Amino acid sequence: MTKPNFAVVLSGCGVYDGAEIHEAVLTLLAIDRAGGAYACFAPDRAQMHVVNHLTGEATAESRNVLVESARIARGKISPLSAFKAADFDGLIFPGGFGAAKNLSSFAVDGPGCSVDADVAAAINAMHQAGKPIGALCIAPAVLAKVLGGKVSLTIGSDQGTAAAIEAMGATHCPTTHAEVVVDQTHKVVTSPCYMLDASIGQIADGAAATVAAILKLLGR
Amino acid sequence: MTKPNFAVVLSGCGVYDGAEIHEAVLTLLAIDRAGGAYACFAPDRAQMHVVNHLTGEATAESRNVLVESARIARGKISPLSAFKAADFDGLIFPGGFGAAKNLSSFAVDGPGCSVDADVAAAINAMHQAGKPIGALCIAPAVLAKVLGGKVSLTIGSDQGTAAAIEAMGATHCPTTHAEVVVDQTHKVVTSPCYMLDASIGQIADGAAATVAAILKLLGR
Repeated sequence: MTKPNFAVVLSGCGVYDGAEIHEAVLTLLAIDRAGGAYACFAPDRAQMHVVNHLTGEATAESRNVLVESARIARGKISPLSAFKAADFDGLIFPGGFGAAKNLSSFAVDGPGCSVDADVAAAINAMHQAGKPIGALCIAPAVLAKVLGGKVSLTIGSDQGTAAAIEAMGATHCPTTHAEVVVDQTHKVVTSPCYMLDASIGQIADGAAATVAAILKLLGR
Repeated sequence: MTKPNFAVVLSGCGVYDGAEIHEAVLTLLAIDRAGGAYACFAPDRAQMHVVNHLTGEATAESRNVLVESARIARGKISPLSAFKAADFDGLIFPGGFGAAKNLSSFAVDGPGCSVDADVAAAINAMHQAGKPIGALCIAPAVLAKVLGGKVSLTIGSDQGTAAAIEAMGATHCPTTHAEVVVDQTHKVVTSPCYMLDASIGQIADGAAATVAAILKLLGR
């Protein structure tokens, strides 16, 4: 039996303007520990903005989502436009503000957000192929927007964000550390991770539980 | 008994011009999993250069080591000039070219390299206090330069780098994945990590072995 093959979509490099680094790295670790293989992807577009992570202030810099994501992937990454659902068993989105700023405009537009065309195409292609999709932290908001309908998912326990998720038609299920919500119909697995005040060990647990639930949906 | 408290010194954010992100995150995870606490530090200085991690080419940008390291630390980081050895039980340096470009000039100057003054002060303060120091990947080169003498350590199996380490007076011990070299006299623990062609799981194993060996030196 070949290894289950995962595509991991990054959204930059750093919690405030890109992919949350612990969630991204610990997703890759969880896949490896579960006996899977992975390839990283990111949209080739400008970041919404660049945030100085020491001060929390936006800067005048401009950075590219794919180029910064390559830091987490150690250079082994492809533009998301090259993603083919046929090549993968599962698709996972780590969190971080990048999911809500670069993969979508959820951070500024809420339920009326737009989603990057390559991100939407990747999600739709996996969904139409009946393949599972995972999302951590705030990334489930992107799935809610793209999949529409009554997809069940979690962003933890933040009531404002949960309300925005439900305004897009999804059903929000409150969760705590390392819990996952599995939507068997839509084959969507979500876990709150740093949407809660968490330790890095709890993030590792959440990423591992997400990968395990996806493998279970795959019957492996 | 209070938690063992570790200081982790970062050198930027990305393998080619800063801290290797997997090694950094998995060091924090290993500390947390072992029941320890951690605080992150980085020198407040300009990076030697900025590398586009997609192409491997240097760019015209300028970035600050502390500001970029803050991405890995989720903003919770202090300038290394504020480090006090009395506050910590152990000090760990993850690898990445940042150790050889920003913490020291080893990447360009080899055995004749200089070391950032705050980095040298932190290493010397821990050493004089008889407290253990860990280093992953290429970071052991910095310890060889600062500690001098016959410290035993490893950077894996690369002969050219091993020769440069020995030219600084240290004794190099070849290792493979997840092995550690423990110098009981100098209380130095080193592991090769991405100096070998490794999987992310092997990096997690190397970081965990390093933290475990430091805890053993501490009698915990």
